[in-house]
Amino acid sequence: MFQTPGRSMYLSNRGNSIRQQQGILQEGFVQYARDQYDDAHNPDGILNVGTSENKLCYDLLHKRLTKPDMLHVDPALLQYSDWRGHLFLREEVAKFLTHYCCSPKPLKADNVVVMNGCGSLLSCIAAVICDPKDAILIPTPFYGAITEDLQLYSDVRLFHVPLDCEAGGKDSRLFNLTVEKLEESLKKAKQEGIIIRAVILINPHNPLAEVYTLKEMIGFLEFAKRYELHVIVDELYMLTVFDESVTFHSVLSADSLPDPQRTHVVWGLSKDFAMAGFRIGTLYTENSHLVEAVAQLGSFHGVSGTTQHQVAQLLRDREWINEEFLPENRCRLKAAHSYVTGELRSMGIPYLHWPATLFVWADLRKYIRESSFERELSLWRCFLRHKVLLSCGQAFSCSTPGWFRFVFANQDHHLKLGQCVTRTLHTLSGLTQLFRYLRESDKAAIVNSTSLPHSKSSEQPEEKDGPVLDTALASRELVLLDCQASNAAEGLDSLIGTLRHQIRSSDWLEKNTPELCAGENPEILDVFKALLQRASK
Amino acid sequence: MFQTPGRSMYLSNRGNSIRQQQGILQEGFVQYARDQYDDAHNPDGILNVGTSENKLCYDLLHKRLTKPDMLHVDPALLQYSDWRGHLFLREEVAKFLTHYCCSPKPLKADNVVVMNGCGSLLSCIAAVICDPKDAILIPTPFYGAITEDLQLYSDVRLFHVPLDCEAGGKDSRLFNLTVEKLEESLKKAKQEGIIIRAVILINPHNPLAEVYTLKEMIGFLEFAKRYELHVIVDELYMLTVFDESVTFHSVLSADSLPDPQRTHVVWGLSKDFAMAGFRIGTLYTENSHLVEAVAQLGSFHGVSGTTQHQVAQLLRDREWINEEFLPENRCRLKAAHSYVTGELRSMGIPYLHWPATLFVWADLRKYIRESSFERELSLWRCFLRHKVLLSCGQAFSCSTPGWFRFVFANQDHHLKLGQCVTRTLHTLSGLTQLFRYLRESDKAAIVNSTSLPHSKSSEQPEEKDGPVLDTALASRELVLLDCQASNAAEGLDSLIGTLRHQIRSSDWLEKNTPELCAGENPEILDVFKALLQRASK
Repeated sequence: MFQTPGRSMYLSNRGNSIRQQQGILQEGFVQYARDQYDDAHNPDGILNVGTSENKLCYDLLHKRLTKPDMLHVDPALLQYSDWRGHLFLREEVAKFLTHYCCSPKPLKADNVVVMNGCGSLLSCIAAVICDPKDAILIPTPFYGAITEDLQLYSDVRLFHVPLDCEAGGKDSRLFNLTVEKLEESLKKAKQEGIIIRAVILINPHNPLAEVYTLKEMIGFLEFAKRYELHVIVDELYMLTVFDESVTFHSVLSADSLPDPQRTHVVWGLSKDFAMAGFRIGTLYTENSHLVEAVAQLGSFHGVSGTTQHQVAQLLRDREWINEEFLPENRCRLKAAHSYVTGELRSMGIPYLHWPATLFVWADLRKYIRESSFERELSLWRCFLRHKVLLSCGQAFSCSTPGWFRFVFANQDHHLKLGQCVTRTLHTLSGLTQLFRYLRESDKAAIVNSTSLPHSKSSEQPEEKDGPVLDTALASRELVLLDCQASNAAEGLDSLIGTLRHQIRSSDWLEKNTPELCAGENPEILDVFKALLQRASK
Repeated sequence: MFQTPGRSMYLSNRGNSIRQQQGILQEGFVQYARDQYDDAHNPDGILNVGTSENKLCYDLLHKRLTKPDMLHVDPALLQYSDWRGHLFLREEVAKFLTHYCCSPKPLKADNVVVMNGCGSLLSCIAAVICDPKDAILIPTPFYGAITEDLQLYSDVRLFHVPLDCEAGGKDSRLFNLTVEKLEESLKKAKQEGIIIRAVILINPHNPLAEVYTLKEMIGFLEFAKRYELHVIVDELYMLTVFDESVTFHSVLSADSLPDPQRTHVVWGLSKDFAMAGFRIGTLYTENSHLVEAVAQLGSFHGVSGTTQHQVAQLLRDREWINEEFLPENRCRLKAAHSYVTGELRSMGIPYLHWPATLFVWADLRKYIRESSFERELSLWRCFLRHKVLLSCGQAFSCSTPGWFRFVFANQDHHLKLGQCVTRTLHTLSGLTQLFRYLRESDKAAIVNSTSLPHSKSSEQPEEKDGPVLDTALASRELVLLDCQASNAAEGLDSLIGTLRHQIRSSDWLEKNTPELCAGENPEILDVFKALLQRASK
């Protein structure tokens, strides 16, 4: 698995630190990039359930993007231009946001900056509102790449506002964001001598998929105003809400913003138009100083003039957007969401139910034996070894281990392959059951060799802190869950060795296998049978 | 004219400093952007002779870029991809460079990084080979935007290696770059406690247009190797050499590089393919550590997948490149170069004669009354007031004031408008002559009111340090040459006032005007006549 590269004599300290920076999301993507699943050419490749991309609407996009109006070249498009983006595009973005954000007044082209992606915009905004080592508040969990967006070039840190994964007390819902929590974290940062310049709010949220009400958002903006904090509002998924039970409200729809000079709204084509490869991010802010400063960095984040033309054509084609793309996209997203959440429910996996974004935030805590990020990472690696790339909570700085983000916006045949996940979890579930048996069996062997547990794991309370385990057994579990730390084959052999020992000293396992697996997925039975078969040899 | 913006309360110290950064090139471009010359819509707009763009081949590009193969979309192009650039494009760039750089062995796709422009590449390379405040050696003059490319994000400084504008001594030619000068500057930097990490070499040179021989380049690379300095070789104009008298040799054509792990070659589409608006820069380096580190910053500098496809199509179309674009482009460049250098010669303006790049480096020292950068800037502003945007030497950190870069790669009708330049210079020439007369006349008035000079300025030796001038007259000259410092109309009125006084006290000027202007451009006569007419009222 992935190794952090050693120090290079050719690079500066900064260069080495940049090269060695390896987030989990990135580590997974690098592996995925080397062995991508492809229906025809690489059916055993890695299935990407981790990267937030909408792969459901390629046909619609292909049809629109290959229309003749997309193939346009004029001299201005081939020449240097305004680093904020061509005026024709900024005008189109302003009109688009006015309409789809339901702005009470027409938004202005002069308040728009277009760059090659929202990461570039975040980097620039951070560079001009913060000095190096300053920090920005962000509720956790959050889309993990923001950490690098702010840090790599601009040397700006995030200060976390941890949200609790349990409801209760004042928290009406899981991961509940409140003004009190923002206040508390700001206070804590000040106590630690950290200068906080801004707060980042993501709505619809990544990875929670939660859609905040306008009232909630205004409350957060008022908090920011009280402390003269800038607010970066990430509305990247604003059009990706696919059920009428929920309505998204952009902060730009407010009659008036609490602090318009410090409110900066980021949107782009990557998610809502399923065009991450187009590299288009847009900023809307009334603060002309910020626009001017960000524009100075624009030469590093420019977009081809011809691409700018294509984006303008797309955004102005309201007929296509309203009558073809959006309804069909929502319909397909809804179906895919329904499929994946159905699978999760059938596995008894809790998740946050929001009909928005491209992913579901799910609680896999029962598949890790203790509440630690090491165990979470082991589970993530185990998925990857089973050719499934997921995103685990620590990649989003979640404060509690065991949460995973499942991207559902994949094509049907990919979703079927999503059964890989089910299989992995069932395998894990079966193995967990087996371990529990073996552990109990070992204990029982000491007390009474005939008293053996055979209840299903779901009927047993989760042992959070767990009893003191037999070291050999505990290490075996670690072997199977931590694919990086040891050679998996060796681990399996060692497990089989133990099984063999158990089988030779007792015939319980063989006799009770059918009962042990009654009502379980046949695949678990297969796992047991295969293990027994090898162990009996 | 342009005012540096005041401090903003919304921005950090860094943000304010970024916003306030205003190079001369940028100042000019901002004004040009507001009032661009357009044959049909704005014939009185600013003519851009300053920005290095090739505007001669739009018809060829339009024809190629609107062919059906350019309108291609596939899923991978719309999705996140390798931040070094799609493999298909890196392969094409490697093949392209292998061929056009005459590499003795096939160059490898793994050594290629594609980003949105060479400025982005320079920013990334600086970030990973330097720590903040480290410096990079660069001979002056040099393409001025490099200063911001290295500083804005990466906080890396340039340490200048000043080249002398006079030949003589060991210098066989003007602005002669030698290993000794590099050595000397490196030594000086070390004495000042500055850490030098690299040297930037530009070939063909911007703004000198000089083409270095491979032997010279290898000499510079060997110097860098001796001190373990990285070398960033900017070969942006490698295909823009339009006369067989000169052949460009890429460092990639060398049988072996002195220090391949520290040699990084930058090229792009902006100049050689006249497509600055496409935002395509390429890096070739054998140093995999550098590639990995730079790739980490790649998400900030990504290019749309569809644009990458178009670039690959263009680069692989050798028939179009070799049989249509390159020969026709060279032919047009040669004609345009010949026209502009002819104009310069006819005005007696010395320039460096190199049949390469898109510009000519010309010596306008005789049009500034004293060797100072303030005077150079005044002349630059005077051009701009005459609706001509040029680039002056200080924008390129030239060590001697009075040099200007003339971009000639403009369409024919633009070149005709290039006569604006001639007119400006002739006007200046005429006025200089007039000032000289007035000054001498003032002096003469004291000594002998009938002895008046009437020799042509070209026959008089240039007064570099000049005699002590009459204060009133000196300030008048400043008025006319420094359009920013005062109201030009007022200055003219004041000059006319003085003229009126001269005319009333003597009829010499009126009588001698035809003789004074004999053999001069009729436009100078017009200037004189107009002034006399207003002064006589």
